[in-house]
Amino acid sequence: MKRIALDVMGGDLGISVSVPGLDRYIRNCESCDFAFDLFGDECRIIERLQSFPAIERRLYSIHDTSDNIIQASEKPTITVKKGRGTSMFEAIAHVANGKADAVVSSGNTGAFMVLSKFLIGTIDNIDRPALVSVLPNADGKTVMLDLGANTVCTSTKLVQFALMGQAVARVLLQLPSPRVGLLNIGTERSKGTEELEEAYTHLERTADMKFVGFVEGTDITNGKVDVVVTDGFSGNVSLKTMEGTVKYITDFMRKEFATGVMTKIGYMLSRKVFDALKNAIDPRVHNGAPLVGLNKVAVKSHGNSDFIGVANAIAVATNLVSSDFIKKIEHALAGMYNDEK
Amino acid sequence: MKRIALDVMGGDLGISVSVPGLDRYIRNCESCDFAFDLFGDECRIIERLQSFPAIERRLYSIHDTSDNIIQASEKPTITVKKGRGTSMFEAIAHVANGKADAVVSSGNTGAFMVLSKFLIGTIDNIDRPALVSVLPNADGKTVMLDLGANTVCTSTKLVQFALMGQAVARVLLQLPSPRVGLLNIGTERSKGTEELEEAYTHLERTADMKFVGFVEGTDITNGKVDVVVTDGFSGNVSLKTMEGTVKYITDFMRKEFATGVMTKIGYMLSRKVFDALKNAIDPRVHNGAPLVGLNKVAVKSHGNSDFIGVANAIAVATNLVSSDFIKKIEHALAGMYNDEK
Repeated sequence: MKRIALDVMGGDLGISVSVPGLDRYIRNCESCDFAFDLFGDECRIIERLQSFPAIERRLYSIHDTSDNIIQASEKPTITVKKGRGTSMFEAIAHVANGKADAVVSSGNTGAFMVLSKFLIGTIDNIDRPALVSVLPNADGKTVMLDLGANTVCTSTKLVQFALMGQAVARVLLQLPSPRVGLLNIGTERSKGTEELEEAYTHLERTADMKFVGFVEGTDITNGKVDVVVTDGFSGNVSLKTMEGTVKYITDFMRKEFATGVMTKIGYMLSRKVFDALKNAIDPRVHNGAPLVGLNKVAVKSHGNSDFIGVANAIAVATNLVSSDFIKKIEHALAGMYNDEK
Repeated sequence: MKRIALDVMGGDLGISVSVPGLDRYIRNCESCDFAFDLFGDECRIIERLQSFPAIERRLYSIHDTSDNIIQASEKPTITVKKGRGTSMFEAIAHVANGKADAVVSSGNTGAFMVLSKFLIGTIDNIDRPALVSVLPNADGKTVMLDLGANTVCTSTKLVQFALMGQAVARVLLQLPSPRVGLLNIGTERSKGTEELEEAYTHLERTADMKFVGFVEGTDITNGKVDVVVTDGFSGNVSLKTMEGTVKYITDFMRKEFATGVMTKIGYMLSRKVFDALKNAIDPRVHNGAPLVGLNKVAVKSHGNSDFIGVANAIAVATNLVSSDFIKKIEHALAGMYNDEK
């Protein structure tokens, strides 16, 4: 049976959402064949499990970790030395030691990246993993990376991200030849930083890649490309801007619909539209960003996810394991890195 | 009578939207007391004006400029030497020479910034102007800068942007003590780049500023702050992501509403909600980003604005001139720069 290591303590809401999230995943996925290793405060986990009996039949083990939790404010690099014993460190180490197939955490993104790289290691030719998300667009889906694991990026890293993004689109979106764009503040060749210029020059000469050049923020959701490549700072800002905009619009409509009888009836008649919209754009539905470029599956759940978000992040991890994602990514990346047209 | 210099040729759509945009502005603003100096191909302008007779009574002059137009692909710095004679250069020079009170252009953003700085000059203590936009948020409005005039920013520039943003919020939003946030990939002090860390240290010691620390992409629209400060790269990516998300959601709903009779009726009953939403988020309504930090009013209209967007950009310029914006900004910035708590 495949196993998932879950960092129960990570994230703003910790155990109060991770256990209910696991319960939701298990109840929604009766046929799935995964067992779970839970990392955190054993007493609190056992107490919490009382309210969620469905988890028991999928529970493989509970690992009591130190009271020390990696805080959101922790400098990521320090956690390599000082993180030992924490729920995040031990959950990642468990996967690194081959005892589980994937790790899921809602904890400090930087620490998760640094510890995963340190304990699990990266695929050949990849220096650092990138946080990847699959977002909705007008025609289908957009793979976007990096979303915050690498604040500052050299052109070499951007090129690696493009290769990884292409591989992810091939594996997860089943697109044999995905269109790859490099995020910039204009589509003209003269725009942007030196790193972007260098990455552009390299990517247009990369064999076996449909590189469409520079793209803009509007192109993330319009279906012009299948993969959007950017540094972790801009990617994180962009993703969170998207989340904020979605929330602004949905809150605005909720308030406006409540103002009159006619609009209330209108809302009831159009319920289908809003359910479909919610399903398409709810950040919780899209929660669970794989850290791609590692030798194992590692999935980052949003720090302030609720239990629905956690359940979705677990589903991302189990899907990646079931689909043999790591082997496919290794295969998609093998030999590609130094190929030039 | 106050005068506005309009670069008729700039932007993706040039004269085909700038003249109808001016016409729309004039017809919507009967009581405004502004005259216009138009810069572009005289023959084409005169031909075009035939279809828009309302413009005539507000027309001050037409300046025939060279066939050479500053393209979107042009390297901005080159335009200082080679831009002379173009519609953008001459319109900015006109304002710099005191012949008009503001300039409006939809042309190359970088060139507009470089030429404005070169010809008009910046306010004391400000190195480079920043592109500013006033965006809707859950409680009111957010002033955001820079949106693309400065791709890479030192901490000093970020601090200047914070001061300018605060001044803009005081003048345009009438907030005596606006809350200022620095955009980052997390709110914890340990997050982000060295430039952000340095800017944070400076801003928390800045007298007379309500600095709330680091904010994230979600905070642009949630009303947590009144001013969001960032470098031009992230700002531009963020703004365009917002535009793309708005378009994605509105297109999604339009398609879904059209799928059934019930939802069509629902839409009709809820029309009011969608009109209000459109009014709140339509990028055309928010078009017109002032380049703040200059000695004169300069407003950048989006490169692919339609005529409604152009009309709004002109309105931004006339409002800034009418409200004595430059004097107020100079006053708001005077003496502040070196003040420390």
